[in-house]
Amino acid sequence: MKPVRVGICGLGTVGGGTFNVLTRNADEIARRAGRPIVIEQIGARRDNPLCDLSSAKVTRDIFEVARNPDIDVVVELIGGYEVARQLVLEAISHGKHVVTANKALIAVHGSEIFRAAAERGVIVAFEAAVAGGIPVIKSLREGLGANRIQWLAGIINGTGNYILTHMRDEGRTFEDVLAEAQALGYAEADPTFDIEGIDAAHKLTILASIAFGVPLQFDKTYTEGISRITSEDIEQADNLGYIIKHLGIARRTDGGVELRVHPTLIPKTRLLANVHGVKNAIEVMGDAVGPTLYYGAGAGAEPTASAVVADILDVARDIATEHNYRTPYLAFIGIDDDQDRLPILPMERIVSAYYLRLSAVDRPGVLARVAMILAEQEISIESLIQKEAKSGDLATIIMLTHAVREANMNAAILSLEALDDIAGPVTRIRVENLDEQ
Amino acid sequence: MKPVRVGICGLGTVGGGTFNVLTRNADEIARRAGRPIVIEQIGARRDNPLCDLSSAKVTRDIFEVARNPDIDVVVELIGGYEVARQLVLEAISHGKHVVTANKALIAVHGSEIFRAAAERGVIVAFEAAVAGGIPVIKSLREGLGANRIQWLAGIINGTGNYILTHMRDEGRTFEDVLAEAQALGYAEADPTFDIEGIDAAHKLTILASIAFGVPLQFDKTYTEGISRITSEDIEQADNLGYIIKHLGIARRTDGGVELRVHPTLIPKTRLLANVHGVKNAIEVMGDAVGPTLYYGAGAGAEPTASAVVADILDVARDIATEHNYRTPYLAFIGIDDDQDRLPILPMERIVSAYYLRLSAVDRPGVLARVAMILAEQEISIESLIQKEAKSGDLATIIMLTHAVREANMNAAILSLEALDDIAGPVTRIRVENLDEQ
Repeated sequence: MKPVRVGICGLGTVGGGTFNVLTRNADEIARRAGRPIVIEQIGARRDNPLCDLSSAKVTRDIFEVARNPDIDVVVELIGGYEVARQLVLEAISHGKHVVTANKALIAVHGSEIFRAAAERGVIVAFEAAVAGGIPVIKSLREGLGANRIQWLAGIINGTGNYILTHMRDEGRTFEDVLAEAQALGYAEADPTFDIEGIDAAHKLTILASIAFGVPLQFDKTYTEGISRITSEDIEQADNLGYIIKHLGIARRTDGGVELRVHPTLIPKTRLLANVHGVKNAIEVMGDAVGPTLYYGAGAGAEPTASAVVADILDVARDIATEHNYRTPYLAFIGIDDDQDRLPILPMERIVSAYYLRLSAVDRPGVLARVAMILAEQEISIESLIQKEAKSGDLATIIMLTHAVREANMNAAILSLEALDDIAGPVTRIRVENLDEQ
Repeated sequence: MKPVRVGICGLGTVGGGTFNVLTRNADEIARRAGRPIVIEQIGARRDNPLCDLSSAKVTRDIFEVARNPDIDVVVELIGGYEVARQLVLEAISHGKHVVTANKALIAVHGSEIFRAAAERGVIVAFEAAVAGGIPVIKSLREGLGANRIQWLAGIINGTGNYILTHMRDEGRTFEDVLAEAQALGYAEADPTFDIEGIDAAHKLTILASIAFGVPLQFDKTYTEGISRITSEDIEQADNLGYIIKHLGIARRTDGGVELRVHPTLIPKTRLLANVHGVKNAIEVMGDAVGPTLYYGAGAGAEPTASAVVADILDVARDIATEHNYRTPYLAFIGIDDDQDRLPILPMERIVSAYYLRLSAVDRPGVLARVAMILAEQEISIESLIQKEAKSGDLATIIMLTHAVREANMNAAILSLEALDDIAGPVTRIRVENLDEQ
């Protein structure tokens, strides 16, 4: 059969990995695709020393790739927003199928891109945009297609998980481990996207659309980073039987969808709690299948390339039928038709259990006043530890609460912080038990 | 768009679950498929009290479903070998697509069925045949399609894992837990298929074909059950940092493919070691993606139905293009063209580390004679524990060895058992470290 001709735009970490995987495993991939997959052209500002480009056609103009009449599939691996958007739209307008690893692009400009692609009848695939090499998009979109998805929760940023893992294992501070991660290349010089949860929110936005059939709504995703997590919180959580992970959580409720990224206490016995270092994992709860979990490398050259090439393979298998794409871009048809079918809940309306840490003046009646404030907001306490004041007169109070609406917790924290007895801000970390029921 | 019309054959546990999931989630599934999926007819010897069949067309003759001109997809859920084979071939000969949950059928008669289906240009899908609701076949066949798969190892029989989990947690005997599992309905009255590894071998046969592109070769799969695992072995493994799991293992080596089901020691820190009760999980190592893992319910009415319906959804999305199936039945084209491309290795040629337990007469020189026999077979010892003889004069020797060819270990065990110093048979359990490198 006729080969599928691929153009790769961007030859950095993921582009280089994609070139190398397609080259090294060409025979095996051709047996899976039923036809050879050949790299017709590469668009890159500079070469990648890890790739043998001797027999490759390289151009410095990525838009030349998007317009090349000899190319069937354009692979966008340049990253970023605006140039990537223009490149993808240009490729689509020339009738090319598109494969991308760009989570920011899909989360923010996905609706526009899918609209253009649907009009032109081409595929846009983006498995590599979420959780690197783990085929979680395919699993959600196809493998779990029988289910009404109830919730999903994922460790979907390797940098953050690396930092939390080393803070816990070695009792080190956030700043200390971050500096190490930067030295090792696991964190960027400007780590904001990773540690503040923006990268995870891009991925969560995409997962939620595919799980629930709601439009991409990155701007409604709540994000809270891990930079304020202290060694003390990690240790206290440990004493209570929990591990702190930076989770992306999407949950269907009667009123709408919860969509939130924040540090979260989860029970140590859960599989997700045992996902360490730069590894990613996503747990998905479906009404028929129950809980399933997907684990693997969430980043890196070849793990991400694995997902990029899987998408190219899907395209190759699809265009063998010389027909439109068989699977809706975001798993459901008509996602944008009814924006209000299932709205994204404002954060005040989500329901969660909480871990609270307070510094209190060590005098009679403090606990009573704290308990009164919680009771007023209908917050019930699951467990409470009061630690003796070590030096000075401040005692530490640690609480786990039962589930309550976030609005009530916000009100309670405001009242607690207004008490003369309470010193400094109240630390609040959400708790998820990830019950498999 | 025109609905996809499904005929369900068999209305037992999985058939009932499939009926209920298709009915309950009809709207959501239609939004994913782009068209309604309707149950046109049900063939079953008796009704299922868990299903509301009031608006269903039921026949007692399953072959009527296979021949019904108003049906697009025949779903085979009767189980067993011969009648299921005839039913599926009849459906194919009438141009129907087929979805089945029958692992025995695919492992033993798959080649014949796929040949017939290819000639007729119809789909045969069988996600539910392996690991229930976990989309591991789709992940291997499509999601990891970029990779040269190096090995996979899975807990793919829930009954066996239930028994081993409770033996370890509660220090109970195999017989005791098996009786409990039978009372709870987790094990059959005749549990041979589950506890002797035959069910797992059916599933492993299918996974290996999809992973490596080799023909289905159930008869070459080595199977060893869990009925001889003792509480003492579980405890000794625990002391050494290991858990005993009943694993299906498929590994690519230069000489061929290892294909084996047997009790296995794995390090406690591995995710697979933390998969308990009736749950299943499969770890897959690909050359690009590294290790990935898939976890979930491996059996049960609705988890298995989840996979059945995912396959129906795939068919619905595919036949929207009114074309042949896009994905090869077993992931690769031309699997049967060259049977010798990658042969299945005889068990004597596999390489593994081992756990050995010996009862030895407690007298001078025993350990020297044991060590000499191992040295002659080039077996090196990683760790050794000798336990004092409690009563009588027999001491227990526990050893972990480094990796060695099984033929050498077989020879060593024969020599050890011939020693006057050694009482009774030598217990041998294979060890896999599942290194993520």
